[in-house]
Amino acid sequence: MQIKVLGSGAGGGLPQWNCNAENSKDARNGHEHVKPRSQSSIAVSSNGKDWVLLNASPDIRQQIFDTKQLHPHADGPMRNSPIQAVILTNGDVDHVTGLLCLREGHAFNLYASNRVLGTINANTIFNVLNKEKVQRLEITLGTPFEVMSPNGSLGLEVTPFAVPGKVALYLEKEKAGTNFGTEEGDTIGLYVKEIATGKSFYYIPGCAMVDQPLRDRIEGAEMIFFDGTLFTNNEMLDQGLLPKTGERMGHMNMSGDDGTLKIFEDINITRKIYIHINNSNPVLRDNSEERKIVESKGWEVSYDGMEINL
Amino acid sequence: MQIKVLGSGAGGGLPQWNCNAENSKDARNGHEHVKPRSQSSIAVSSNGKDWVLLNASPDIRQQIFDTKQLHPHADGPMRNSPIQAVILTNGDVDHVTGLLCLREGHAFNLYASNRVLGTINANTIFNVLNKEKVQRLEITLGTPFEVMSPNGSLGLEVTPFAVPGKVALYLEKEKAGTNFGTEEGDTIGLYVKEIATGKSFYYIPGCAMVDQPLRDRIEGAEMIFFDGTLFTNNEMLDQGLLPKTGERMGHMNMSGDDGTLKIFEDINITRKIYIHINNSNPVLRDNSEERKIVESKGWEVSYDGMEINL
Repeated sequence: MQIKVLGSGAGGGLPQWNCNAENSKDARNGHEHVKPRSQSSIAVSSNGKDWVLLNASPDIRQQIFDTKQLHPHADGPMRNSPIQAVILTNGDVDHVTGLLCLREGHAFNLYASNRVLGTINANTIFNVLNKEKVQRLEITLGTPFEVMSPNGSLGLEVTPFAVPGKVALYLEKEKAGTNFGTEEGDTIGLYVKEIATGKSFYYIPGCAMVDQPLRDRIEGAEMIFFDGTLFTNNEMLDQGLLPKTGERMGHMNMSGDDGTLKIFEDINITRKIYIHINNSNPVLRDNSEERKIVESKGWEVSYDGMEINL
Repeated sequence: MQIKVLGSGAGGGLPQWNCNAENSKDARNGHEHVKPRSQSSIAVSSNGKDWVLLNASPDIRQQIFDTKQLHPHADGPMRNSPIQAVILTNGDVDHVTGLLCLREGHAFNLYASNRVLGTINANTIFNVLNKEKVQRLEITLGTPFEVMSPNGSLGLEVTPFAVPGKVALYLEKEKAGTNFGTEEGDTIGLYVKEIATGKSFYYIPGCAMVDQPLRDRIEGAEMIFFDGTLFTNNEMLDQGLLPKTGERMGHMNMSGDDGTLKIFEDINITRKIYIHINNSNPVLRDNSEERKIVESKGWEVSYDGMEINL
């Protein structure tokens, strides 16, 4: 199973278009220790020829351009793409906007929970994807499904499961209380297994909390991509960027007693990789103290173009 | 007045993600005569500090990254952007998707016709732009308006006017006859005038036909950006790309008796620039015969990063 990180950043990417903070400024100016990052998405393939995208980021056109595995097959028809399916983990703008760039008549399958499909269906702009060519397939939490291209199996089995999270920002209901109208299925994780080999990994780019069911589920995993949004819960306030904590955004921090570094210490996982890393996070500076800390705890910080063979 | 071409390509850009034709293939592989092009949009400024975007393409994040004039002011607040207003010429995915990337709390004004605003309003995903910070302002065909930032005048006056065109693909009504339900205001052109100097130009990236009212309007213009989608009406069919003519897409061709080269021969315009150029168009090869032809007729072929001072 081949995995390619198309984008490792959180919403906005690095640099973020309107952000003047140190990380964005340095990424914009080509700082040697602060590499640009596009918005989070990965591609997975069992046969190396047909690929499944986990989320479709707004940066998808550039991500495809930068990823030779996703270029049209040179010996294929005049219009073709290795992208055979897209699976969405939520309805966030940074995870669904890329669908609007996958028009032009290419057939692929779109998988999402009924909550997220409801959002796609309610926004007619997504009809730019011809429903006859791009089937919208509902996935059921807790139920494994074989990922199919319009022509057959892609050799991968995926199990979607609910994780603690928050509904997408533009769907928040202010009057719905502290969870803003969030329902189960608004944020999901994916367990991806190659059918032929049984190799597997977890993809959880957004998660508000590691509760006991999630801990039990991922115990013993071969590999996990996990929400690396913030280093500290307050860092966006501290940097004067946004009056919101990570908790309020439905994302986790790395440091502290409630952080992933601490929580994952007693969960047995062979390979742990942060993804969906916000532009405010100091681990994005590859010579920072914080980068040293997370690496010393056995975590990797994913980057655009990262390739993994399982 | 400063003008910066952010994107010179039509929908899909060059290369187009799923296109195997010669132009896309060569652009992908770094061919010296076939430069990549992002999707059409230009930025305009009267004071060189505050900028107005004409359309917001899906490639906007990369376009901002590539354009130093659109970087946050280094001496400004932690979050800031020179982008103070966006004016839409239609509801096409390649002209509105970039709005989804202009979130993160920045205040600017959004101008569009009531038809296009209706589409934006009907798609709740655009609520990611907080309506209190991003005012949606209706523009009236034929009525000049002063382009305002949330803080005051941007020194530009714009007159929107209807041009022959077609409603956006995802809004087409199959049963509505040969115009697919198109109404006046679905496609507009913009006349942009700098208030202080009176300098002006036309921006018409999509146009199905130069009718007499349009001809009368642009006669004597200083400069025009005009729909350069196709070289020949049938080129997408001929290249095996799409079973549609330019006419069916609501766009014009350059060559032939009904083409812009011929039609503009007896319209007096000082500077004529093609924009919104489709990846199938042979003028995108800068050493092609077709490029020589359009240049010999006094046309320029715009490119990403092109700068003009009027």
